[in-house]
Parts: sequence; C-alpha cells; structure tokens
Amino acid sequence: MFSLHEKEDTIVALATPQGVGAIAVIRLSGKDAIKICNSVFKGKNLESQDSHTIHFGTIRDGDRIIDEVLVSLFVAPKSFTKENAVEISTHGSSYIVNQVIKLLVRSGARPAKPGEFTQRAFLNGQFDLAQAEAVADLIHADSETSHQAALNQMRGGFSGEISKLRAELIHFASMIELELDFTEEDVEFASRDDLRILVEKLLRVVEQLISSFDLGNVIKNGVPTVIAGKPNAGKSTLLNALLNEEKAIVSEIAGTTRDFIEDEINIGGVIFRFIDTAGLRETTDVIESIGVSRTQEKMKTASLILYLFDLTDSSMEEINRDVENLETLGVPFIKVANKTDKSNTQFINELKGKFPDTIFISAGQKENLEALKNRVLELVNLDKFRTGNTIVTNIRHYDSLVKTRQSLLDVLEGLDNEITNDFLAMDIRRSLHYLGEITGEITTDDLLDNIFSKFCIGK
Amino acid sequence: MFSLHEKEDTIVALATPQGVGAIAVIRLSGKDAIKICNSVFKGKNLESQDSHTIHFGTIRDGDRIIDEVLVSLFVAPKSFTKENAVEISTHGSSYIVNQVIKLLVRSGARPAKPGEFTQRAFLNGQFDLAQAEAVADLIHADSETSHQAALNQMRGGFSGEISKLRAELIHFASMIELELDFTEEDVEFASRDDLRILVEKLLRVVEQLISSFDLGNVIKNGVPTVIAGKPNAGKSTLLNALLNEEKAIVSEIAGTTRDFIEDEINIGGVIFRFIDTAGLRETTDVIESIGVSRTQEKMKTASLILYLFDLTDSSMEEINRDVENLETLGVPFIKVANKTDKSNTQFINELKGKFPDTIFISAGQKENLEALKNRVLELVNLDKFRTGNTIVTNIRHYDSLVKTRQSLLDVLEGLDNEITNDFLAMDIRRSLHYLGEITGEITTDDLLDNIFSKFCIGK
Repeated sequence: MFSLHEKEDTIVALATPQGVGAIAVIRLSGKDAIKICNSVFKGKNLESQDSHTIHFGTIRDGDRIIDEVLVSLFVAPKSFTKENAVEISTHGSSYIVNQVIKLLVRSGARPAKPGEFTQRAFLNGQFDLAQAEAVADLIHADSETSHQAALNQMRGGFSGEISKLRAELIHFASMIELELDFTEEDVEFASRDDLRILVEKLLRVVEQLISSFDLGNVIKNGVPTVIAGKPNAGKSTLLNALLNEEKAIVSEIAGTTRDFIEDEINIGGVIFRFIDTAGLRETTDVIESIGVSRTQEKMKTASLILYLFDLTDSSMEEINRDVENLETLGVPFIKVANKTDKSNTQFINELKGKFPDTIFISAGQKENLEALKNRVLELVNLDKFRTGNTIVTNIRHYDSLVKTRQSLLDVLEGLDNEITNDFLAMDIRRSLHYLGEITGEITTDDLLDNIFSKFCIGK
Repeated sequence: MFSLHEKEDTIVALATPQGVGAIAVIRLSGKDAIKICNSVFKGKNLESQDSHTIHFGTIRDGDRIIDEVLVSLFVAPKSFTKENAVEISTHGSSYIVNQVIKLLVRSGARPAKPGEFTQRAFLNGQFDLAQAEAVADLIHADSETSHQAALNQMRGGFSGEISKLRAELIHFASMIELELDFTEEDVEFASRDDLRILVEKLLRVVEQLISSFDLGNVIKNGVPTVIAGKPNAGKSTLLNALLNEEKAIVSEIAGTTRDFIEDEINIGGVIFRFIDTAGLRETTDVIESIGVSRTQEKMKTASLILYLFDLTDSSMEEINRDVENLETLGVPFIKVANKTDKSNTQFINELKGKFPDTIFISAGQKENLEALKNRVLELVNLDKFRTGNTIVTNIRHYDSLVKTRQSLLDVLEGLDNEITNDFLAMDIRRSLHYLGEITGEITTDDLLDNIFSKFCIGK
C-alpha cells in the first residue's frame, strides 16, 4: 500500500492509449502538479492562472524545445482527484511523450501506479469505491448494456441503494447498542418486531441484488452462446451474417473502426460470446454430436443454444431426436430452420405444425435474421435492466452481498432464538461491515491495492 | 479535393490513438463546432463561454447519458485550425468514442478525412505547407534527431530560409519584368551583375540544402547499417547488448514502454536501422560471404558497416583479406574486434599495430561499447545538424530544390548568353514557382490531397 509520503507525491502518466495519434495527453496530479509543469513550460505563468483554463506554450528541457503544447489547469479541489492537476496535450508521438514524462520526473513528479489517479479521487472523497470501480468497467465496456450498467454505477446508482440499506441498519444497530448501556433496566429502544420487518425487507433487496448478478455477469462478459447443428447446416454463414451487419454499422464512421473478436456479436446492445464447439462441428452425425458427453458438457456452460438445422437435409425424425436431446440439457435453446430459400413448402408447414416456435431463416440470403435476433433478446431477460433496476456486475460486490445475506439471516435466527443484545448487535455490525466493503466505507490496504492495481496506468 | 462546401463543414474525429486508455479526446472543428457540441452537452451553455476554458458535463443522446466529459473550447481564430474548435475528453473506451462521434455526426458534424484538421490550419494561414508537413513528421519522429528536425521545420526554420531566398528573387523578377514595359528605352532596373551574384548565392544555399538531404534522410529513416562477420563472431550478442541498454533506459519510466522493432537501435539520438543479412550470416566462410556478390550488393546499400570478428577465431590473414574486400565497397566501415575477455594479449597487440583504428570490445561482457558507439556517431556526420543548420528531410522538398537548382542554372546560362528579358524573367519565375511549392505559396489541389491523405485521421 502507499505510504503517507507517497500519497503526497505529484504523480504523472500518459492518460491516452499508447500508439500513434494526433495528440497525446499527459496527466499530472498532486500538490506540486502546476508548479512542476510551470518549471518546464514557457508561456504564461501557470501558477497565477485560473482553474479550468487552457494555455499554449512550449515544454523545454533547458534550452531545448521538446514540443509545442496545450496545458489544461485544474486547481484543487476542482479536479478529478481533488488535487491540483494538469493535463498536457502534446503531439501524439511516443518519443515526445517519453521525453516530457522523463523531464517531469526529473523535475519532481513520480510515475503513477496503475489506477493511482482514481485511487486518489476515491481517497479524497470524489466518489466511493463502487463508483471508482465503475470507472474501470466503463473504460472496458463494449456494448450498450455493459456501458449503461457501468455508467449507472459510476454515477452512484448502485452506491445509493447500498447506502440506503446501510443507513436503516445503522439506526437499528445504534438503538440496540444503546440498550446495551441499559442492560439492568430491560428497556427496548429498538422494537424487535420492527427490526425483523427491516431485516426481512433488507434481505429481499439483497436477494434481488444477488440474483441480478447473473444478468450483470452476462452484461459485463457477454452471453455464452452455442450454435449447434450438423456440418453444413450453415453455422458459419449465420455467424458471419450477424457479424457483417454489425461491422457495416460500425464502419459507417470513418476512423472509428474497432477490432472485433470474430466470436463476439453485439445484438441489440448485448454481447453474445460464441463458444467454440469445434469438436461438435467436426462430427458428421448430429445425433451423436449432440449426444456425446463432451459436447454436452460444453453446451451446458452456455446460457443460450441456437439449434440450427438445414431444411434441405433434415428429417422430422432427426429434428425430433435433437430437440429431445437438447431439452435434457436445461439450457434455453432456439430452434432455427435454415435455408428457407431452398426448402419445399410442405416440410416447412409440417415443421410449423410440430414446432410453432421455430424461426425460419435463410442465413445465406440474410432473410428473417431480425426475427431471430428478437427471439435471442427475449431469452436474455433484459426487462430488469431496461426498467432501471440496479444490476450487480462486479464479483467483489456479489461476494460482499452473499456475506451480507448470511449475516442478515444470522440476525433473523438470533431474533427467533431471542439471543442477547450483544450477539444481535454483532451480527448487525457484521452485515454493516460487508455492505460497507462495497462502497469503501470499510477498506483495507490490501483490498484497495487489489482493486486499483487492475486499472490501467494514467487512470 | 474538397469543395468549398466541404471546407465549411464542421468536422469530427478521434484525436487520440485507438485502444484502451484512461481518456480519449474527440476533436471538432468548424463554424458550428461549439453549437453542435452544445446541442448534446448538458452543463453550462457552451456558446456563451470564453475561449480556452474547460467545462464539465454530460454528453446525452436524448435522455440517455453517454458519458461524463470535459469539454475544452477554442473560439475562432484562437485555435489550431483558426476555426471554432472543441475537444471532448471522454473516458477512454472505444464504445463511448463510437457513440459520441455517431451522435455528433447525427447532430450535424461530418467525420474528418485524414489530415483535414492540419489542412484547414494550413488553408486558414496558421502555418505554411512545409510546417504542416512537419506536424506529421513530428508525430512519427522516434529519435532525438528526427524529432528535432521535425520540430525545427514545424516552427518555421526551414520555411524561413526558403522565404528569404524567394523574397530576394522576387525583387529581381519584378525589376526585370518592369524592364519589359520599357523595352523601347533600353533601361536596366536590375543590374545583371547583381543578379548573377544573387543567383550564385542562391545556388550555393540551394546546393547546401540539397546536400543536407542525405543527412536528413538518415535522420528521418535511420542509418542503414550492416553488421558483417562470420557466424559466432557475436553479431546477435552485439545487437542485443546495444538494444538492451536502450530498453533499460526507456523502461525506467513505467507506462511509457515503447514497442521496439528489434532491428532499430537508437544511439546518441540517431536511429540505426540494421539491414538483414541473413544470407551472410548463414554462410560459414567469411571470405566467401563478404566476397559473394549478393551480399556485397546488400552491403553497398548500407551507410555503415560494422565488421565484427572473433579475436579467438580469426587469423591476421583472414582479417586482412576481409578488410581489403570491405575497402572495395566504398562504404564506411568500422573494424570491431570481439571477445577481448577471451583473447590473448599478444594477438590484440599485433592487431593494434596493424589496424590502430580497431575497436576492441566484449559484446558478451558489454565492455567498451561506449567507444564503439562514439565511433559510430563520428561516422554519421552530425556536425551540420548540431550547428543548427537547416536540414531537408522531406523528399518532396528535395525534389523541388533540385528543380529550383536547374532553373537557377538556366538563369545563369541565360545571363551568359545574354538572352532576352522575357526568357530571363520566365526562368526566374520558374525558380520562384519551385521554391513556392515547398512552402505552399504555389499549390495544386492534387498536391494538397496527396500530402494530407498521408496524415492520420484526427490530425
């Protein structure tokens, strides 16, 4: 963990990605940030300028000019870290960035550790721990839902919920602890019935948050999805059809093309991560392939299976057997009939009679993909998300919530067994402790280290 | 080329590199830059704020918040492009960048073309063409010398020199053209002797600039270097020894580690680009290897050869033959005797007598590498550069200078042959034209297109 001395250092780091761009931004934060920048800056005297102003000048190492730059000033406490802060916008060359950072280090700054800017913002009360963690999630968000979940969390939605729970519980804890001072007198400041009602209410909220983690995890990491089916059923064609459409949307905006992982597809703002079932694809018999245990194990890890079959190369008997096999897995699946453009109407009608929920597409002709996407989104229950409910996306928060639940259950059990006030108070305090871990009201150095070391440098 | 209409668009692009970083900066420029940004910004009214101020707020697509951002305002003409300009500093996620740019495009901005910001800066008189070109060079500079050359050029050093030459020549051109109006009267406003003196002076300067291009090219692209020698002479060890030292210096600054191309080494601020002589390395006999024409051809393309031999595995006869072979190439070379730590003193002394300029090193022990580096730098004539003389690094400028030289020689020839004033004026005008091409006083749309399309988007 950082020593007190380290916390008073002025830190410096590149805040923009490595690589060639038009500009790069170097960020300084700390008591001497403006002073140190001023000592290598030729232009106006930065130390006598207002906060939130921008100044043109040169960064100089003695007589040697390193670059023409724009310097943005943030005077404490009006900055991200609540310390004095400076952002130096240089030409986007790694040579220049290197030179400027080296010069600033020689002039008294220290290279920042990963996440150190955000950590300072947290330590200086800019936001709580859950919000700080959301900053990292926000940076890595790559879909509408993960972005929205991170943004909500950063803006305090989740923290607000936790704080409300804590505040109510703290009130009871104090009352019960007050009773401890009057043990002789058998007074009851806190009604045990009211406490039970509160704890039960809290439990419901905590349960709800815990159960939201399934969705939160899917939002953050993508929905693990399998496309199952015989070889030549059109699995790759379907993947590409879904993928290409997305690529086309993104490449509309010149210069912002992103690198796509081939097996991730964004449908309606949700990432679907396609699990490699290469083994399954290689087997030639679909019954065997879906039946064999290795493939079944893989499919069980999925949250969604698209069962794709070729209308021109499947018998009703085959489809029946596959569907029966899939039903034993307990994973939601969608029956997708492919190659409608080449199939005969009679077979299609027969299927519609037998399995009315089948989606009929032509992956090659990109027909009816919209219906498939809608069905896919239906199966990922986004209602909770859309209605603005708080979603837990962070496994650390999930762990703390599970521990909170246990402590609350202990409180209830204590009430049932009419345990003494001091034990009751301890159980309540334990609940408070775990809730406090989420927002950082309770922290340890190890915990903070662990959280912020996963951030990138410069954040 | 851009139509007039296109020049009045407000353009938008990501200005920082693609990838994950703490922040990303999106840049807008054009008449409506501030207005468009304001239409999606919730915070202060940006249209009534001062230039060079920074404002915190949110970017919103309707009710949906995309990000919390800092907006920097630059009110025309106080911006890089001399137009209204805005820089939006978002969290460094490509999802967010995509969303914000799409929103700005829907709100009236247009995705910028490569180099379009710099092109506008040029067209609006922020700087001349040679300076604009230096912006791209500056971004790609990866050594002290290439950086310094680009910075000097961006700050107008080179342009100043060219403009001075042009101004003197323009004076004479006008005088001679004035004479054309008085052909009947046989007056001589411009002394032919003075003109000859001026043109000869100009020629010397132009010659000097042309000859600086060799050095300029080396500064910009690296010194093509070959390490020659038998297998096991220690070539890789030497390369790594030189490379590792550099890596150590760079990695001192956490978070600024650069990707190195294995075969480029920075010595004293100059990049040495090592030419792959794999073929040479594979042959087992050094005489044959240095003798064979294919290897010789490769070595001839080098500006410098390090001839490395193993003190423990070379005879004086061998070394003699190799040196003779190398001398026929006409490329500067350094004799480097490796493995001093394992060699016997007698052989070393013998060599010192025969070839006093040999550098004795131990690549494995990293001994005496400093002496080798100093010799290497001696052979790249950096004096010209160090004394602050203008260096031509751009092949387009080189071409224009060569054409200028020819035109000036034509003027001299015309003076010798006492050609008529109209022809003399034409030759002078041609010189002026070529000089003007460098700084952009003379441009064509094709030329500008060609120059700026090589820039990155966002610059």
